Amino acid sequence: MKTLGYAAQSADSPLTPFAFERRALRPNDVAMEVLYTGICHTDLHQARNDWGWSKYPIVPGHGIVGRVTGVGHEVTRYKVGDHVAVGCMVDSCQQCDQCRRGEEQLCRKGNTQTYNDRDRITCEPTYGGYSKHLVVREEFALRVPDGLDLSKTAPLLCAGITTYSPLRTWNVGPGSRVGVVGLGGLGHMAVKLAAGLGADVTVMSRSRDKEADALALGADRLLVSSDAAAMAEAANGFDLIIDTVPVKHDINPYLPLLDVDGTLVLVGQVGPLAEPSTVPLLLGRRRIAGSPIGGIAETQEMLDFCARKNILPDCEMIRMDEINGAFERLERADVRYRFVIDMASLSAPADA
Amino acid sequence: MKTLGYAAQSADSPLTPFAFERRALRPNDVAMEVLYTGICHTDLHQARNDWGWSKYPIVPGHGIVGRVTGVGHEVTRYKVGDHVAVGCMVDSCQQCDQCRRGEEQLCRKGNTQTYNDRDRITCEPTYGGYSKHLVVREEFALRVPDGLDLSKTAPLLCAGITTYSPLRTWNVGPGSRVGVVGLGGLGHMAVKLAAGLGADVTVMSRSRDKEADALALGADRLLVSSDAAAMAEAANGFDLIIDTVPVKHDINPYLPLLDVDGTLVLVGQVGPLAEPSTVPLLLGRRRIAGSPIGGIAETQEMLDFCARKNILPDCEMIRMDEINGAFERLERADVRYRFVIDMASLSAPADA
Repeated sequence: MKTLGYAAQSADSPLTPFAFERRALRPNDVAMEVLYTGICHTDLHQARNDWGWSKYPIVPGHGIVGRVTGVGHEVTRYKVGDHVAVGCMVDSCQQCDQCRRGEEQLCRKGNTQTYNDRDRITCEPTYGGYSKHLVVREEFALRVPDGLDLSKTAPLLCAGITTYSPLRTWNVGPGSRVGVVGLGGLGHMAVKLAAGLGADVTVMSRSRDKEADALALGADRLLVSSDAAAMAEAANGFDLIIDTVPVKHDINPYLPLLDVDGTLVLVGQVGPLAEPSTVPLLLGRRRIAGSPIGGIAETQEMLDFCARKNILPDCEMIRMDEINGAFERLERADVRYRFVIDMASLSAPADA
Repeated sequence: MKTLGYAAQSADSPLTPFAFERRALRPNDVAMEVLYTGICHTDLHQARNDWGWSKYPIVPGHGIVGRVTGVGHEVTRYKVGDHVAVGCMVDSCQQCDQCRRGEEQLCRKGNTQTYNDRDRITCEPTYGGYSKHLVVREEFALRVPDGLDLSKTAPLLCAGITTYSPLRTWNVGPGSRVGVVGLGGLGHMAVKLAAGLGADVTVMSRSRDKEADALALGADRLLVSSDAAAMAEAANGFDLIIDTVPVKHDINPYLPLLDVDGTLVLVGQVGPLAEPSTVPLLLGRRRIAGSPIGGIAETQEMLDFCARKNILPDCEMIRMDEINGAFERLERADVRYRFVIDMASLSAPADA
C-alpha cells in the first residue's frame, strides 16, 4: 500500500514528507494505521548519522501504537480493529537459542530494527513509525491492554522496555535499592517502573533543581552528585543503578555508590565510555553492564504491568510537521519527558 | 620478638635488611616462622609507591607459608609445628554482614592488609612476609593441607585465591567456557584452576609464542588476539574472561568474545581502565566486573582443592638477598610464573 511518512534524506537535511510503499501483507503480517509514535533520542542520532551506520532515506520512529486494518491469512493473534504496538524491532530469526527463550533482542543473527535496517526476506529497507501505516509480522506486534491511554503508550515500547528489562534482569522488587542517573525520557520511566516494582528509588542529579520532579515521578529522594558529603554518605547503598545518560560521561562518581556485587547498567550511551576506575570494581566486586531493550514476551509483560499499575510516561503531543522543532528541543533536553506525534496530524495519501 | 626482614625505605630505594619487632602474642594470635614467601606484582607497586598510598618502611609479602612457633592461650585451631599460611589480609571487623558471610575481603570497615596497613588495635604498621617471623590472629591463618608442596604453596595465597574467587563467584564448572588474558603469575593460576574445575579454557594472547606454555598449563587452546579472523570466529564464545593484565590496557577486543550475559572480570589492573565501548555491553548485555582476592573460608577451600587436584604454581626459588634483581625481572615479566623467596636464606637475628 502507498503511505506517507517523514524522512531524513541525508545527515544534514531536516525531516520532510516522504511517500513510499508498505509491503503487501504476507500470511503472518498485520497491517496497522499508526495512531501515535514516540520520539526517541535514537531517532535524532540516526537521522543525523551520529553513529555512522545510517542509510537514507530514514523514516524514524520505534515506539508505535496503531489500529489493525488488515491481517494475513495465517494471523491468529490479532483482528481488524485491535490496538497494537510495535517497538524497536520487527523481526528476528525465531530459531536460535535466544529467540527460543524469548530474547529476540539478542537474536544470534541480529534482530531486524524497525527502521534503518533491512527486511529479512526482501532486503528492502525498513521504515519506522513516522508514517501513516505500518506492516509487521504478528510475532512483533504487541497487544495494547485495555485501559492504557493510547496517546501515551508509544514511548513504553522504547523508553519503557529499555528500563523495565534491566529492572527485571537484575531482579528488582520490594527492598531493592535503585538509583537512576539522567532524568530524561528513559530516566523518568526508570523511576516510575522501579517505584512500581516496589523498589526504593533515588534519582542522582548534579543539582537539586530536579528534586520536585523526581519526587513527583515517584522517587523516594534526590541525591545531588556534586555534594561530596551526601555522595560519601550514600556509598554502598545501591543494588542497581540505571544510567540513562545518552552521551559520553563519567560514571566514576556512581560506582562507589553500589553495594558489593551491585551493577551500574548503561542503557543510554552508545560509544566509548569515559575511563572508569577499576578500584571500586575491585574493592566491591562491582559491575558495569549494558542492556538492550527487551524481548517480545517481556515487552508484553511490561505493557500489562503498566496497565495494571497505571504507569505511563509524561508526554508532550506534537503534530508531524512540528518534528524538526521537536528534534531541536530534544537536543537541548527541553521536554518533559517524551514527545509523542499525533499521527492524525499527517494526512494519508489519497489512495491509502 | 625481634625479627629481620627486607624493607623499602622510600619509593626509590632498593629493598635492604630491616630489623623490627613483631608484637607479643595476643590471646588469639599465632606466631610463625616464615618458610616461604611469594613475590607479587603488588609488592613492586607498593615498594615504589605506584598507587600513592605507600607508607615507609614497607616490608612486602602477602603470600606466606610458615610453621607455627607459638600460640596465644585462646587459640584453638593451631598448635606449635603446624604448617600455616597467610594471604593478603590479617584482620577485619568480624562483625559486619560481609565478615559474617565469610567475605572478610569485603569487610564494611575495610580489611587489614598484611603490609602497608595499620593494626586494628594498636594502629602500628603491618609488615609482610619478607621477614623471618609473623604474628597473626588465628582467624586469618590458613591450614596448609598435608601433601601440598610447601615450597610452592605461598603464591596460592595471592595469585591462587585472586583467580579462584571469581571462578567460584561466576559458578565456573564443567561446561563453562573461560578465557584468560595475561599469562603471568595470576594468569597461569587462572588457567590451572579453571581447568581443575572442569572448564574449557582458552588463553588469549597477542602472539602464538605462548601456545606451548598455555597448553602445558592445562589450557585447551590459545587464541591469538591479533588474528582478526580467529577473534571474529570466537565471538560470543565465553561465559567468563579473567583479565589478569596488571597495567592499563584495552579490553575492547575481548568484550565481543563474551556470550550474552557474560562477564569480563578484572583482577590485575588498579586504576583507570582504557575507555571501553558500550556497544558490546549493550548488544549482548555483557558485563565488566572486578574481583578482590577472596574470603578466608574460600581461601581454605582453594588450598584444599589444590591439594586434592595437585594444583600448584610454577615457581622459581630465590634467596632473600636476590629480591632487587627479582623485582627487575618481574617488571620485565621475566619469570615463569612466580618467584618464591626461600626464607631459610635470611639469617634470623641472634636473639630471635
